[in-house]
Amino acid sequence: MKKIAVMTSGGDAPGMNAGIRAVTRTALSLGLEVVGIYRGYQGMIENDFIPLSHESVRNIIHRGGTFLKTARSDDFRTIEGRAQAAANLKAHGVEGLVVIGGDGSFTGAAALHDEHGVKVVGCPGTIDNDLFGTDYTIGYDTAVNTAVHAIDQIRDTAASHNRLFFVEVMGRDAGFIALRTGLASGAEAVLVPETTTYIEDLTAKLEKNWKMKKSSAIIIVAEGDDAGGAIEIAKKVNAKFEGWESKVTVLGHIQRGGSPTAFDRILASRMGHAAVLALLAGSTDVMIGQKNGEMVEVPFKQAVKHHETLSKHLLDLVEILS
Amino acid sequence: MKKIAVMTSGGDAPGMNAGIRAVTRTALSLGLEVVGIYRGYQGMIENDFIPLSHESVRNIIHRGGTFLKTARSDDFRTIEGRAQAAANLKAHGVEGLVVIGGDGSFTGAAALHDEHGVKVVGCPGTIDNDLFGTDYTIGYDTAVNTAVHAIDQIRDTAASHNRLFFVEVMGRDAGFIALRTGLASGAEAVLVPETTTYIEDLTAKLEKNWKMKKSSAIIIVAEGDDAGGAIEIAKKVNAKFEGWESKVTVLGHIQRGGSPTAFDRILASRMGHAAVLALLAGSTDVMIGQKNGEMVEVPFKQAVKHHETLSKHLLDLVEILS
Amino acid sequence: MKKIAVMTSGGDAPGMNAGIRAVTRTALSLGLEVVGIYRGYQGMIENDFIPLSHESVRNIIHRGGTFLKTARSDDFRTIEGRAQAAANLKAHGVEGLVVIGGDGSFTGAAALHDEHGVKVVGCPGTIDNDLFGTDYTIGYDTAVNTAVHAIDQIRDTAASHNRLFFVEVMGRDAGFIALRTGLASGAEAVLVPETTTYIEDLTAKLEKNWKMKKSSAIIIVAEGDDAGGAIEIAKKVNAKFEGWESKVTVLGHIQRGGSPTAFDRILASRMGHAAVLALLAGSTDVMIGQKNGEMVEVPFKQAVKHHETLSKHLLDLVEILS
Amino acid sequence: MKKIAVMTSGGDAPGMNAGIRAVTRTALSLGLEVVGIYRGYQGMIENDFIPLSHESVRNIIHRGGTFLKTARSDDFRTIEGRAQAAANLKAHGVEGLVVIGGDGSFTGAAALHDEHGVKVVGCPGTIDNDLFGTDYTIGYDTAVNTAVHAIDQIRDTAASHNRLFFVEVMGRDAGFIALRTGLASGAEAVLVPETTTYIEDLTAKLEKNWKMKKSSAIIIVAEGDDAGGAIEIAKKVNAKFEGWESKVTVLGHIQRGGSPTAFDRILASRMGHAAVLALLAGSTDVMIGQKNGEMVEVPFKQAVKHHETLSKHLLDLVEILS
Repeated sequence: MKKIAVMTSGGDAPGMNAGIRAVTRTALSLGLEVVGIYRGYQGMIENDFIPLSHESVRNIIHRGGTFLKTARSDDFRTIEGRAQAAANLKAHGVEGLVVIGGDGSFTGAAALHDEHGVKVVGCPGTIDNDLFGTDYTIGYDTAVNTAVHAIDQIRDTAASHNRLFFVEVMGRDAGFIALRTGLASGAEAVLVPETTTYIEDLTAKLEKNWKMKKSSAIIIVAEGDDAGGAIEIAKKVNAKFEGWESKVTVLGHIQRGGSPTAFDRILASRMGHAAVLALLAGSTDVMIGQKNGEMVEVPFKQAVKHHETLSKHLLDLVEILS
Repeated sequence: MKKIAVMTSGGDAPGMNAGIRAVTRTALSLGLEVVGIYRGYQGMIENDFIPLSHESVRNIIHRGGTFLKTARSDDFRTIEGRAQAAANLKAHGVEGLVVIGGDGSFTGAAALHDEHGVKVVGCPGTIDNDLFGTDYTIGYDTAVNTAVHAIDQIRDTAASHNRLFFVEVMGRDAGFIALRTGLASGAEAVLVPETTTYIEDLTAKLEKNWKMKKSSAIIIVAEGDDAGGAIEIAKKVNAKFEGWESKVTVLGHIQRGGSPTAFDRILASRMGHAAVLALLAGSTDVMIGQKNGEMVEVPFKQAVKHHETLSKHLLDLVEILS
Repeated sequence: MKKIAVMTSGGDAPGMNAGIRAVTRTALSLGLEVVGIYRGYQGMIENDFIPLSHESVRNIIHRGGTFLKTARSDDFRTIEGRAQAAANLKAHGVEGLVVIGGDGSFTGAAALHDEHGVKVVGCPGTIDNDLFGTDYTIGYDTAVNTAVHAIDQIRDTAASHNRLFFVEVMGRDAGFIALRTGLASGAEAVLVPETTTYIEDLTAKLEKNWKMKKSSAIIIVAEGDDAGGAIEIAKKVNAKFEGWESKVTVLGHIQRGGSPTAFDRILASRMGHAAVLALLAGSTDVMIGQKNGEMVEVPFKQAVKHHETLSKHLLDLVEILS
Repeated sequence: MKKIAVMTSGGDAPGMNAGIRAVTRTALSLGLEVVGIYRGYQGMIENDFIPLSHESVRNIIHRGGTFLKTARSDDFRTIEGRAQAAANLKAHGVEGLVVIGGDGSFTGAAALHDEHGVKVVGCPGTIDNDLFGTDYTIGYDTAVNTAVHAIDQIRDTAASHNRLFFVEVMGRDAGFIALRTGLASGAEAVLVPETTTYIEDLTAKLEKNWKMKKSSAIIIVAEGDDAGGAIEIAKKVNAKFEGWESKVTVLGHIQRGGSPTAFDRILASRMGHAAVLALLAGSTDVMIGQKNGEMVEVPFKQAVKHHETLSKHLLDLVEILS
C-alpha cells in the first residue's frame, strides 16, 4: 500500500480534526502518501481531493468541526454515484480509505467495499455514541461536557428560584448523551428513548421532589424521547403541575461544535493511528473501536446494526443521587 | 447611618454576588453594620434577614446567581405588604437599603421610599441592559459572552455544512443582547424588537448571502422580536426559502448563569461601592449608573421609564461586516 | 451498619465534591446516617464533624475543590493522634469511613484500620493518577483538560511566532498528566520522570523540527522530571540552541481547581456509590478503582505501593503525531 | 483611494483577527481593494502580500492570534529596510495602510509616514493596555478574563488550604492587567510597577489578613513590578513569613491567546471600521482610540509617548474589598 485517503462524513463531531491529523501523520511516518477528500462521499464523487502533508494538519488538533468538511450525498445512494467515487479513488492511486463518521457513513463504506473492493477502515466519529463495538465514539465526551457546562449555568439560576428547567440534548434515537449529561449535572430526571416516558410518573416525582427539597428541578430530555421534545414535554407537565413555571432550553448544534476535550483528542488520535495500521495489516470493512481501553476492529455490519445498551446501572444512579 | 441592608431582586444576573460583596465590605470598612435580605422583597416581608460579615461574602465574587437568592413577591404589590416590609427594616435598625435588580425592583424601591421614607439606592443588576442612565448593567457582558461562545460552537458546524441557524437570545423587549451578540459572533442577521422585522427582506438577504458566499448563515433572534421567537421565524423563513435546512437553538436560562466576566465583576464592585457612598452622602431614590466610565446617580423614575436607544451605528455595522 | 463518615484528604482534586455527594446520598437512600469530617485527619482528631443530609450536598456536583476542605495533619502521624481520631469516630457512632484522597490518605486509612479496626474504604481522589489498581483517579481528567486548554491558548500565539514554549504541568513523580496533556495538545515533546531526559536529544529534536516545519514548538515538562522544572530546562536548552526565544509557563495550582469535567463527576459518583456498597458488604482496607469500566476493590497496600505504568505506546504516539 | 493594506505587528493580541476582518469588509463595502501583509514589517519588506476578499476573513472573528501573523523586524529599523517596505507598498498600488499593533508598531508606522509619506492609521492591538488616548486596547479584556479565570481555579484550592498564591500576569511596564485582574478576582494584594512595592508592607498585610480571616491569600504580581517577578517575590515573602507555604503560577503566553471576548471583538470591529473611514477622510499618522464609548483619533506620537494613568481609585478599591 502506497497511498491512502482520509475523509469525514455525516454530522460533525469534535475530534474529527484530531482524527484526520492522526491518520495523516501516522501514514506519512510509515512512508505512505495521503490525500484528503473534501465533503465526504459527495467530494469523492466530484473528485474534490487534496494531498495532505505533515504541515496540512498542523494546528488543527484543538479545532471543532472538520477542516475537510462533510456533506450529504444523494448521489452516493445510487450505483452510478458509487461507481464514480470508486473510479476517482482508483485514478488517484488510492489503495486504502479511512472514513471518520457514523452509521450512515459506514453503510456507505461497506457498499464501496462490497461493490468495488475498496479497502476501507472506519473511525467512529459521532457525538451520539450510537455504534456497536466501541465504548466511546469521537465527539461524545465533548458533547456531554458542552451540555453539562450549559446546565451548570442554569443551575446558578435554579438555585435562586423555584422552577422546572427542561433541557433538550442531542442523540438521535439514543439516550447516551442524555444519560451521562444527567448524571454529571445532577439532574432530577433524565428522559431517554430507551425507556417509556410516563408524564404522570414524572409529575409525581417532581411533586415529591418539591415537597422534599423545596427547590427547582432540572429535567434532561433526549431529542428522540418517545414523549416528545423538551418543548412538548414541558407543556404536558405544566398542564398537570400547576403553579410552577417551566423554562426550556434547546441546545441544538452547540453540542456538535466546540474545541474537543482531551479525551476526544486522544481517542481520535489513537483511532486514527490504529486505522492506518489496520489498513496496512490488510483489514478492511471494519470500524476501529475502543473496548476496555484497547483498540479493536469491528465489522461494519455489526457496528451499524444496533448500538450498545444504555447502562441500567447508570440510569438507576441518576435516581439514587438526585 | 449605622446599619444598612442589601438584597437582590428580579431575575438573576451574573455579578450580583460581586455587588453584594462590594456593598458589604465597603460598608464594613466605613464602620457600618450590614444585613442581607434573602429572596428580595418577599424575604423583606417575611423577615428573612441575615447579618453579613467580611467572611460572609468570601469566595463569592466568581459565582453566578446570587447567594441571597431572589423571588417574586405578589405580597409586595400590596400596601400592606410594603408596610410590613418597612416595619421589618425598622425593627432591624436598617437606615439605608441597597437593591440590586432591574426595573421592577426599582419601582418597588421607589414605592418603599415614597410611602415609608426608606432611604434606598439601586444597582442595575439585569442581563437585559434595559435601564436608562447607565451604559451597562451588571450581567449584560456575561450574558453576551455566553451567547457568543455558544454561537462560536455552532460556527464550527456551520463551516462544514450549508444551513440556516436561528439562535434565540434573551433581552425581554430590548435588543441589546441580540445586537452585541450578533456583532461579536459575526452573525449574518440580527432581529431585534426595536426595528420591524420583514421576513421577505430577511429571506432576500439570505438568498443573496448564499449566492455570494455559498455558506451557512447564523441569524440572531431577540426573544421579544416582533416577528416571533426563533422557532416561529425559522418556520416562516423555511416556508419561503426552499432547499435549506433550518436548525434552532434556544439558549434560555443558560444566559442568566455562569461565572461573571471580569467586566461584570468590576462593574458590580464599583457600583456596590458607589451605592454605599451615595447612601452615606444622603442620596436616595436613585440608581447608580456608569456613564463614560464614571459612576453617576439616576433617579429611579428616570431609570425605569425607558431604556437607552439601541445604537443604529452598531446595527449598521453588523450589516457591513457580515 | 447504621452510620458512616466521609472525608477528603490530601491535595484538592476536582470531583471530590461529586464524590462526597454520591457517598452521602447513596448512604441516605439505604437508610444510613452520614457525617462529614472537615479538614481530613486533622478534623477527625479535632472532632470537626457535621451531619450530612440530602440538602447538605445540593448544588456542589459542579464545584471544584472540596466543601469539607482538606488539611495536613502532623498529629495523625503519631500513635496518640490516631487513637484520638478513632475515639472520636467511635463517640459519633461511626461504623464505616469513606476517605477520598491519594496515597498518603490511604496509608493513614490503613493505619486506622490496623490499629483500631476502623472499617474504611477509599476513593482515589488526586489529579496525579498515581495509584495502582485504577485506570483513572478523580480529578485527573479535569487537570489534563485544564492544561490542554491553557496550551491551546499558547498555540494561538505559537502559530504567529517562532518560539520555544515550555509548559510545566503537575503530577509529582508521575508523568501521567504530562503524557496525556502532550498527546491531546499536539506538543512537540513531553518530558516525564519515567524516562531519562537528555537535553542533547531534546535540542537535536527541536532543531530537526525547526528545519522541517519552520515553526514554534511546545514542550510539556512534568514537574518531577529528572532534568528539572520548566524554568531550568528552558535555560539549559537555550544555552545550546541559539537564536530562539524561550517562554515559560508554570501552570501551578490552576490544575487543582476548576469545575470538574463530566468524566470526573461520573467517575466520582460511581466510586462514591461503590464505596458505600463495599462498606455495607463488609469490605475494608480497600480502595475503589475503575478497571475496564467496572468498579473494583484494591487493597490499600497495593494501591499505594506503586502506580500503573506510563503507556509506552502513548509516549511513542506523541512522537509519531508531533 | 482605491487600495489599502492591513497588517498586524508586535505581540499577538486576541481580537486582531476581528480587526483584520473589519478593515477588510469595511473597505470592500466601500469599493476599495484590500491586501493583507503577512508577518508585519518584515513581510512588508519581503513583499509577503496577499489579496483579501470577503471570503478571506470568514470564520476568523472568534480565533485568537492573527492569521496574518506577526514578526519582529530588525531590517525595518534601518533606513534601507523602510525604503524597501515603502517601495513594495507603492508597487502594489497601496494608498493607505492600517496597522494593528502596539507602541513599537506605531513608531514604525510614524517613520514610514515621515520618510515616505505613506498614509497610515493604527488600531491599538496589545493586551497590555499601555497606549495613551484610548480607554481600552484590543486584547486587554480577553487577557484579563484569562487571568481571572485561572485565578478562579486557584481559588477553589485556596478555599481548602492555607497558603500564599503568587500569580504573575503580563503587562510589561504597566500594571493594567494586574489591577483589573486583582479587582475582578478578589485578590488580597496587587503589585504593580506604578507604585513602589515594599516587601515589609506586604508581609505585614498578609499577617494581618491571616489573623483576621484565617485563610489563604492570592497576590497578583505584574511581570514588570519593581520588586521582581512572582518567583522572586514569593521567595522574599517566604523568608520573612514563616510557616506558610507559597505556590507560584506564571501565566505567561496563555494570556496572549484564546478566543477573544465579545468586548474585544466589538472593540476591534469598531476600530477597524473607523480606521478605514479615517484613511478615506484623509487622516494619517494617527491611532484610532476609544474614549467614553466613542471612536477618536490620536496622533501616533502622543499615543506611544506614555500611557494612561493607572486608576488610584481602583487600586484603593482592591484594598477596601479584599
